[in-house]
Amino acid sequence: MANPTAAMLVIGDEILSGRTRDANMHYLAGALTEVGINLAEVRIVSDDRDAIISAVQALSAVYDTVFTSGGIGPTHDDITADCMAAAFGQSIDVRDDARAILQVHYDKAGTELNAARLRMARIPEGARLIDNPVSAAPGFSIENVHVMAGVPSVFKAMVASVLPTLTGGAPLISKTLTIHRGEGDIAGPLGALAEAYPALSMGSYPFQRDGKYGANIVVRGQDTALLDEAMGKLAEAFS
Amino acid sequence: MANPTAAMLVIGDEILSGRTRDANMHYLAGALTEVGINLAEVRIVSDDRDAIISAVQALSAVYDTVFTSGGIGPTHDDITADCMAAAFGQSIDVRDDARAILQVHYDKAGTELNAARLRMARIPEGARLIDNPVSAAPGFSIENVHVMAGVPSVFKAMVASVLPTLTGGAPLISKTLTIHRGEGDIAGPLGALAEAYPALSMGSYPFQRDGKYGANIVVRGQDTALLDEAMGKLAEAFS
Repeated sequence: MANPTAAMLVIGDEILSGRTRDANMHYLAGALTEVGINLAEVRIVSDDRDAIISAVQALSAVYDTVFTSGGIGPTHDDITADCMAAAFGQSIDVRDDARAILQVHYDKAGTELNAARLRMARIPEGARLIDNPVSAAPGFSIENVHVMAGVPSVFKAMVASVLPTLTGGAPLISKTLTIHRGEGDIAGPLGALAEAYPALSMGSYPFQRDGKYGANIVVRGQDTALLDEAMGKLAEAFS
Repeated sequence: MANPTAAMLVIGDEILSGRTRDANMHYLAGALTEVGINLAEVRIVSDDRDAIISAVQALSAVYDTVFTSGGIGPTHDDITADCMAAAFGQSIDVRDDARAILQVHYDKAGTELNAARLRMARIPEGARLIDNPVSAAPGFSIENVHVMAGVPSVFKAMVASVLPTLTGGAPLISKTLTIHRGEGDIAGPLGALAEAYPALSMGSYPFQRDGKYGANIVVRGQDTALLDEAMGKLAEAFS
């Protein structure tokens, strides 16, 4: 049976300008692979209302689950929550449950819950809050979309809050064989092996190290015995 | 005048599975920013024919220029060239100009130009070759799409081959002020400033370091004098 599919939408000018290197995508990719959810597509868009709305609508329609990161803070460029409400035809306002969470957090810290911070309690009608044990301000889930913060420590904490609520698939097992030859020598036997094992996926990821070519051959599948058999043949072909 | 826009399409299961962390996107983002081309969207898709074709068609229609990385090697999972031909309604076969480049390269190396390596000479009809000074096998440009390798050293070399052929925009200047306060305290004055300077873009990128909150405020624009003026007011507001 096919594993559940997921997509990620990264929201933020800072990644598209090359200022920041995204860390959340790589983390989510690993976490989803572990629970057998197939991350099938990632899109990165800027802090632009139309771009965010059309991307989340497109991804939500095609994949089982969508994760977003970024744009839910207190500043003027944090427009993700309003875009999500618009994308799914919901109203949005400061919600009492989210405000209460912020109030407790900022009271403890002796910090004023001012108008800017209160923006973080703007949650679309009908959305479910996502727990944020790091900095309190919640994410939220609307339809099949989980809306999370961009700060990596908070993103990770929110992923941990959301993952147990999802139905995973059979974990994908993956094995790697590193071959120190050019891909041009690997391609023939590898292609034949890939045809002989249609239930497995075989990928060749070339590298160049100290001026020499090689490739990591990654074989993925859900049947350990079949995987071991194919890895044996692979090793034999390139011994 | 608005700067030219670009998008990037990253092709490769290895990134979506969390196995590899993409390096090309971050590199391209920085290189485009330097020449005043606005990287507006990135998509990452797996080695799947339909996904690649529909993504490149969508991006090519919306943005001035599209860059792809990955999937142009000699192995069975390298399907990018065939997908590009299909996306733009062109035929594809081994092309003499590309074959000649490979022949010279492999003759020099004393390596056989076998059937697998010859796959790298499959170039869509009408496409222009992109020079690859690292490992010879060329990329190609079809319509407004530049199709490049995924191996970072080769990707970089191909970007260097393509960039001089593109028309850039006025370089975007960006200045950063790091403020060691929570975004909730920054948001009010920053929002007012962003409204007062509509020609500049102001972004707030929060971080958490040693348990303390802060944010990098990045102001971008094309008018140095205006940028300096706004940075002065920003510093004043948070002094």
